[in-house]
Amino acid sequence: MKQPIVLFFLCLNFLWSFGQEDVLEDFQSSELNQPGKQFPMVNSQGYVRFKVNAPAADSVSVSLGLGGSGGTTLTKNNEGFWTGTTAGPMDEGFHYYHLTVDGGTFNDPGANNYYGSTRWESGIEIPAHDEEFYALKEVPHGAVQQILFPSPSTETSRRAFVYTPPGYQKDTDKEYPVLYLQHGWGEDETAWMNQGRANLIMDNLIAEGKIDPFIIVTTYGMTNEIKWGGIRDFDIKHFQTVLTEELIPYIDSNFRTLAHPGNRAMAGLSMGGMETRMITMNKPSLFAYYGLLSGGTYSPEDVKEHDELKLVFLSAGSKENPDRVKNAVSELKNAGVNAVSYVSEGTAHEFLTWRRSLRELAPLLFN
Amino acid sequence: MKQPIVLFFLCLNFLWSFGQEDVLEDFQSSELNQPGKQFPMVNSQGYVRFKVNAPAADSVSVSLGLGGSGGTTLTKNNEGFWTGTTAGPMDEGFHYYHLTVDGGTFNDPGANNYYGSTRWESGIEIPAHDEEFYALKEVPHGAVQQILFPSPSTETSRRAFVYTPPGYQKDTDKEYPVLYLQHGWGEDETAWMNQGRANLIMDNLIAEGKIDPFIIVTTYGMTNEIKWGGIRDFDIKHFQTVLTEELIPYIDSNFRTLAHPGNRAMAGLSMGGMETRMITMNKPSLFAYYGLLSGGTYSPEDVKEHDELKLVFLSAGSKENPDRVKNAVSELKNAGVNAVSYVSEGTAHEFLTWRRSLRELAPLLFN
Repeated sequence: MKQPIVLFFLCLNFLWSFGQEDVLEDFQSSELNQPGKQFPMVNSQGYVRFKVNAPAADSVSVSLGLGGSGGTTLTKNNEGFWTGTTAGPMDEGFHYYHLTVDGGTFNDPGANNYYGSTRWESGIEIPAHDEEFYALKEVPHGAVQQILFPSPSTETSRRAFVYTPPGYQKDTDKEYPVLYLQHGWGEDETAWMNQGRANLIMDNLIAEGKIDPFIIVTTYGMTNEIKWGGIRDFDIKHFQTVLTEELIPYIDSNFRTLAHPGNRAMAGLSMGGMETRMITMNKPSLFAYYGLLSGGTYSPEDVKEHDELKLVFLSAGSKENPDRVKNAVSELKNAGVNAVSYVSEGTAHEFLTWRRSLRELAPLLFN
Repeated sequence: MKQPIVLFFLCLNFLWSFGQEDVLEDFQSSELNQPGKQFPMVNSQGYVRFKVNAPAADSVSVSLGLGGSGGTTLTKNNEGFWTGTTAGPMDEGFHYYHLTVDGGTFNDPGANNYYGSTRWESGIEIPAHDEEFYALKEVPHGAVQQILFPSPSTETSRRAFVYTPPGYQKDTDKEYPVLYLQHGWGEDETAWMNQGRANLIMDNLIAEGKIDPFIIVTTYGMTNEIKWGGIRDFDIKHFQTVLTEELIPYIDSNFRTLAHPGNRAMAGLSMGGMETRMITMNKPSLFAYYGLLSGGTYSPEDVKEHDELKLVFLSAGSKENPDRVKNAVSELKNAGVNAVSYVSEGTAHEFLTWRRSLRELAPLLFN
């Protein structure tokens, strides 16, 4: 009578493992770890393994992974370390995550921190098959300048980051076009350079001769949050004032820019796309190039009287709603607008979608 | 028989509280908190109050404070939050700290992160009576440029930060002296701008007419740690190569510098002082101004053949060993060396000592 039972469990085990791949034991430390920290680790399939020291804790879980609760539950080993591996491979690219230790939210002490979800989160990088385009290479590098510009409307000096391309410091006669590039909800002006690697993407595109050098400016777009009004009370006018009346004039008078709408672009990811759409609609004569990265669409009606407009660029990850941007671009084209769509294969509402979108957008600008 | 016992405990209580001040209930959120986060809070006496959510934890403590274990033990309230106040006031200025949650080391989710002790620590700021000199004010602001310079010796592009003073971008004919400024053990090239506020100190000194503008460059000094040799195997040659053969030539060819030893200074805090001393001794013709901030001393013998030398600046906090720098400066002066000592009142081996030291050093440079 024993054999049928054994067979039953063998079948159960077979069904359970069906479709699951073997996890390869080629884990390497994440490239975004703090110096000298071994964990978290990533394997060649995109699985992530965690190891957290909390010997007296009762429970430790990670917000990253495909487990039942949308995360990964760690288990305690004999030495008091909590370990675990995501139940499946993660999408290529950058992901935010955090730990839950005995009910409290903490960061992984092994990982670097990145501002997202209105907090400094832990970050991890799943090496992408096309990671070369945002890699640190032996090419001439531009600078990322942290500036503080006067903002009468918010009664302070505000921070922005300005990517100046290689050669900007030396060739002091040359003037450059400018792309104003906005982060998403819960992020800040650090996101495009830290998570987005915008400076390295630009350095590489310039070194390959794929684009002519231009300047990128990032600043904080959740200006209405300064007084903690929250997203429900969102009003574009606060940020629009900072961007169009304070930051742009400051950039044009302190950097060597081509200070003309034809040499000025605005783009943003997610909420930054929504802001880009609102501001370009409110100020149709200020920018000639519009980019919404996972951040909505324009209708032909929206832009029909935009005389300066040279390009509308709409993008999304294939795991988002890519048909929406493709359809919108078809309609824009039918109406005679120069519009381009881009879909990032195999990615969702995350930074690899936007790194690739910048790579695709940059060569279309300022031609 | 009850009265003597009551009296005994009253006396005990009196003796216990003797010398302890009342804790004023005027706590305000630390200025280094993450956006929108209420805790940690600081009162006008310098006490710090913490509140951490970890409902299922068995113990939470903070590495900051004056308790028995050198920190502050938090206690759980009815809502599952762990709260506590330091047993005494903290020194004015910036402090690193972290939490211990059930035996594991985590950061305070309320605070911003700063790289120190070879990890991204939580940071807190106790407002100082003289905080104006490093405050963000309505004055012209310089830029902090993140650059990536080629480093053949370490086979990568290395990061440095370059403070360029207000006007640097506009007046493209002017050339500037350069101060190479090093962080301490366990810190990195971000420390002088983030924890040290070197850019704001410079902006304010320039606005007040107390100094002529100069450039500051910071880079990672624990170069030997790249291969994790550790401090025991410290060898200055790795960092010396990066600084003197790679970074300085890069700065002199990519920024508008006065590329002459008479317009070049090197200074560092703590281990960065040790490195400054070693490198200026090995390369006596490269710098004219030397600064050791809580970072050792020179003897007259050390510098007697340094023909380019114009100034030795030695500083320390009054809670360190200030006599050591005062005595060293006396000896240097007796030997005819232009030497200046500075003691920061009421501070220890922490960043307020070094912010003040930079304020004192800057006006003595490049005259």
